[in-house]
Amino acid sequence: MKPRTTPFSGVIPPVVTPLAADGTVDTVSLERVVRHLIDGGVDALFALGSSGEVAYLTDDQQEIVLDVVVKTAAGQVPVLAGAIETTTNKVIERARSATAKGVSAIVATAPFYTRTHPTEIDRHFRQIAAACELPVLAYDIPVCVHSKLSRELVRTLAADGVLAGVKDSSGDDVSFRQLALDLRDQSGFALLTGHEVVVDAMLLGGADGSVPGLGNVDPHGYRRLHDAASRGDWAAARAEQDRLARLFEIVAVADPASASGTAAGLGAFKTALAVLGVISANTVSPPMRPLTAEETDRITAILEQAGLR
Amino acid sequence: MKPRTTPFSGVIPPVVTPLAADGTVDTVSLERVVRHLIDGGVDALFALGSSGEVAYLTDDQQEIVLDVVVKTAAGQVPVLAGAIETTTNKVIERARSATAKGVSAIVATAPFYTRTHPTEIDRHFRQIAAACELPVLAYDIPVCVHSKLSRELVRTLAADGVLAGVKDSSGDDVSFRQLALDLRDQSGFALLTGHEVVVDAMLLGGADGSVPGLGNVDPHGYRRLHDAASRGDWAAARAEQDRLARLFEIVAVADPASASGTAAGLGAFKTALAVLGVISANTVSPPMRPLTAEETDRITAILEQAGLR
Amino acid sequence: MKPRTTPFSGVIPPVVTPLAADGTVDTVSLERVVRHLIDGGVDALFALGSSGEVAYLTDDQQEIVLDVVVKTAAGQVPVLAGAIETTTNKVIERARSATAKGVSAIVATAPFYTRTHPTEIDRHFRQIAAACELPVLAYDIPVCVHSKLSRELVRTLAADGVLAGVKDSSGDDVSFRQLALDLRDQSGFALLTGHEVVVDAMLLGGADGSVPGLGNVDPHGYRRLHDAASRGDWAAARAEQDRLARLFEIVAVADPASASGTAAGLGAFKTALAVLGVISANTVSPPMRPLTAEETDRITAILEQAGLR
Amino acid sequence: MKPRTTPFSGVIPPVVTPLAADGTVDTVSLERVVRHLIDGGVDALFALGSSGEVAYLTDDQQEIVLDVVVKTAAGQVPVLAGAIETTTNKVIERARSATAKGVSAIVATAPFYTRTHPTEIDRHFRQIAAACELPVLAYDIPVCVHSKLSRELVRTLAADGVLAGVKDSSGDDVSFRQLALDLRDQSGFALLTGHEVVVDAMLLGGADGSVPGLGNVDPHGYRRLHDAASRGDWAAARAEQDRLARLFEIVAVADPASASGTAAGLGAFKTALAVLGVISANTVSPPMRPLTAEETDRITAILEQAGLR
Repeated sequence: MKPRTTPFSGVIPPVVTPLAADGTVDTVSLERVVRHLIDGGVDALFALGSSGEVAYLTDDQQEIVLDVVVKTAAGQVPVLAGAIETTTNKVIERARSATAKGVSAIVATAPFYTRTHPTEIDRHFRQIAAACELPVLAYDIPVCVHSKLSRELVRTLAADGVLAGVKDSSGDDVSFRQLALDLRDQSGFALLTGHEVVVDAMLLGGADGSVPGLGNVDPHGYRRLHDAASRGDWAAARAEQDRLARLFEIVAVADPASASGTAAGLGAFKTALAVLGVISANTVSPPMRPLTAEETDRITAILEQAGLR
Repeated sequence: MKPRTTPFSGVIPPVVTPLAADGTVDTVSLERVVRHLIDGGVDALFALGSSGEVAYLTDDQQEIVLDVVVKTAAGQVPVLAGAIETTTNKVIERARSATAKGVSAIVATAPFYTRTHPTEIDRHFRQIAAACELPVLAYDIPVCVHSKLSRELVRTLAADGVLAGVKDSSGDDVSFRQLALDLRDQSGFALLTGHEVVVDAMLLGGADGSVPGLGNVDPHGYRRLHDAASRGDWAAARAEQDRLARLFEIVAVADPASASGTAAGLGAFKTALAVLGVISANTVSPPMRPLTAEETDRITAILEQAGLR
Repeated sequence: MKPRTTPFSGVIPPVVTPLAADGTVDTVSLERVVRHLIDGGVDALFALGSSGEVAYLTDDQQEIVLDVVVKTAAGQVPVLAGAIETTTNKVIERARSATAKGVSAIVATAPFYTRTHPTEIDRHFRQIAAACELPVLAYDIPVCVHSKLSRELVRTLAADGVLAGVKDSSGDDVSFRQLALDLRDQSGFALLTGHEVVVDAMLLGGADGSVPGLGNVDPHGYRRLHDAASRGDWAAARAEQDRLARLFEIVAVADPASASGTAAGLGAFKTALAVLGVISANTVSPPMRPLTAEETDRITAILEQAGLR
Repeated sequence: MKPRTTPFSGVIPPVVTPLAADGTVDTVSLERVVRHLIDGGVDALFALGSSGEVAYLTDDQQEIVLDVVVKTAAGQVPVLAGAIETTTNKVIERARSATAKGVSAIVATAPFYTRTHPTEIDRHFRQIAAACELPVLAYDIPVCVHSKLSRELVRTLAADGVLAGVKDSSGDDVSFRQLALDLRDQSGFALLTGHEVVVDAMLLGGADGSVPGLGNVDPHGYRRLHDAASRGDWAAARAEQDRLARLFEIVAVADPASASGTAAGLGAFKTALAVLGVISANTVSPPMRPLTAEETDRITAILEQAGLR
């Protein structure tokens, strides 16, 4: 792997947002999640990502999350904050709020809901970067925003100093590899993968790090995986990844007849954290439903198979 | 057409949001738009719809828009307000704010950005309706939210009194027709089409009214079209629709190499209103670009051909 | 509606292909279908369309179908033949075979399976037309070929005499309406809708005719609908269409847990024809399953409600 | 990597189909391609794949291709044959023809053009396998057939002995990894990747081999890549892959304003082979256009940078 030239590399889990039964942010549980992750050896924290339920949290809830994460992290690791809004001005508003909370970087997607255009996406990131003091990372997540950041766009915005990195959740591994080649000599740019099941392969292909939702549940595993890859021990990296891929089966537990993929995934991470005693409850935001007791039992069994319990 | 049993029928344009050069809401122009529409004979106003640039406006801007529209309408026609947010709690927050401004109904989409599920969409609308005093209309706009409201879902939510209507911008005319048959005897439910180019056909098929973005430019035309259809004069309705379809060519003027469909459409409506002297400028929100002088000339020519200038 | 200037207008059902229990073409039943349709007053027949199971029939089966349809029609009405293949040379091969069988026109889609391009689609139709003596109609069916024929493309190919018509199954009623306006003065061009639930609306908007799969089951209904529209009696057209829309519920009978939309639709048409005694069995091609006895009972009930039995 | 338990592993390029200026198969050039690949050390040949232009070739052309490939391979390596048709009976017809030509395995996709269903896809492969004497591999290529083979389906069909392998061109690397884990102990099943830019990563993740279109141009490179991975030298595998990824830039040379992705990709492979003297001309099937002289110059330059000329 290339030498580290970016502070946003290694293992950067998207921090889940624990909720109390009444739907408010469970700040005590959130503090525990943050400590659990830092104790697990992560390199940074990504608050208010998709796994952090950002699309479900009101502005007030988002501010509480940042307060707790930044305060609990206490400078031990950088905190990246999602500013996930439909268009430019709204992103900037969130980014400024996050900046005031003391985070280290902003993560923003292309415009969504509205139809958009490559020239508009380009302008979008430039205007956000111009309005923010902090580094801006692009979040490439077509399953949510329904457009893909092109290799050309990312390359140009990297070269122009607009973007400090990209978190790739596109599933387009060909484009990712080509981008890794394009940006090999782009100092200070972070190429991160959001696909927790193929982190070894993405590191082999040139990623600087990962943003694994599953890292909430097993940060130590991703730490070991990253370290093995860093020292070139790909057999060990692969073995750890295979174990984590089996652990990832927790996201397939929820009955698809009554749960979206989001509810199944978020719900599984939260349920696992509750089973592990890190958070108090597996409550999720409306209109999602929480995982049932039976589903929780199946997740407990998978945690045991993975040696986590 | 069926007898009117809903206050949300007829011509209900989605009100554009004029902006000053600095990006703030141009409240004077917005007042003029509202008066222009009421003078044009519209039956109601839909503020903060897609054509109202809702996805681009900050919360503060949205509140200003509602203040101006409600105050200017002054009870002459009902005002519907979009509460367009990614998920339930955020929609409810917006809906409560709009309710406090004095609007008559709330318009909300299915969840977006996040992946969703039929059971979640069902719960979403039920929770919104339970949290709002006002009637709730569903906004079916797959091009923005990437899921389609199923005929079964709408039928059930109508029967259960959750929804007071649907604004259909899905382009699925088969489903629309079937829904019209399903809901023929559903008193008080408004079935509205968002497709301004086929309003005559949708009225023939059972729509109660239309939400035509182009109605900002030519409210009188949609008034005449609706009235002709109401009295069964389909030849006249069709002739008016054909004229309006030709006027709709303004949305194809912007160069697609540098404008999204949204920028081209919104930009054309605003440019036409500026040419007609209703608003002061054709400014659009970032990251869109406004139409150019050359594009404005072409829009002017189309307005002239349509007899509007 | 505009005066008839094309031989391919009015009611043109896509003829279903009855199969024997062993999967071979049931030629006796096919003859009965053709007579049933001609007795029902249709204007032309479309053999080897999607409803004719063309994508499931081997070349030999396709040739048998054309033999039977052409021979049974015996010049009473024109026969259009689908030449549905992935790319140009393969379409031309099918088109030549159909021409030799004595059909009156060829219907072809854009390339599919392979990724394609507007310039390639343009060339595709030009090369097909150049290689065929017969008129060529374009079949616009994005749900199958995954690209939409643009308004500009159809307009150009119509003006250049390449296309003699289009069968629109795109569901894009805005584009359809705009095309109807564009082609209003294009003599000899047939604008046909494939959406059997909104034929009245499409005729109001300028269609020359329809290609209703459901017309296999109730050709008389579509005849009455078309005639009412032709004489400007839109209330009668709408009433007939509403009745047919209810009949169309037969396509929703098959259990979606074990039948594709194609199997449900084709299976329903065939089952209805079997119930009505027109064909001997409701066999469908592999890998589809036929409708069950229970599903058949539900279809029988719908046929009775529609007054067909 | 797991021990070889399948004859269909290693490097298996999808053989391009050279064409003469008049569009007929250039059998002399095709013989040279086959020898070029075997000399390059490939483990097997895949004739009539997407890169083999299968969707563009008539039945007669397809038979000529198989004759030449099987005869020229002369038993040195196995030949897999694509049987790419819309539905079951048509696939079986092609598969039987290929079997008679002496190939070693059949490769088939899910149904396309028609809408399909998981139960139908399951039945499709079972019926094909039952009708063929040869091993059947599934071709998972959603970009062409617009459905993805689910992990569960492939796992079941593998366990039931229906499928002897899968060629994955889905780009869904998460599913691919999970399948690799699922099938780790499935003796005799071949898990092949079709993504030539990430072969190293896919091999790390458990693939048995690759089907690289680019392997037509540089079979030796893929041989070295596979061998490095086989001996666990991932740094060498990655370096070779990076070189090949840069070579893959040839597919981005064709002007996207006048060439589909297919035309750009196929056209680049053929142009490179023509530049290298393996085939006589870069002719492609209608409605595609061949690469221009200027585009050829750019491809020549990339070949030189990659050390191939």
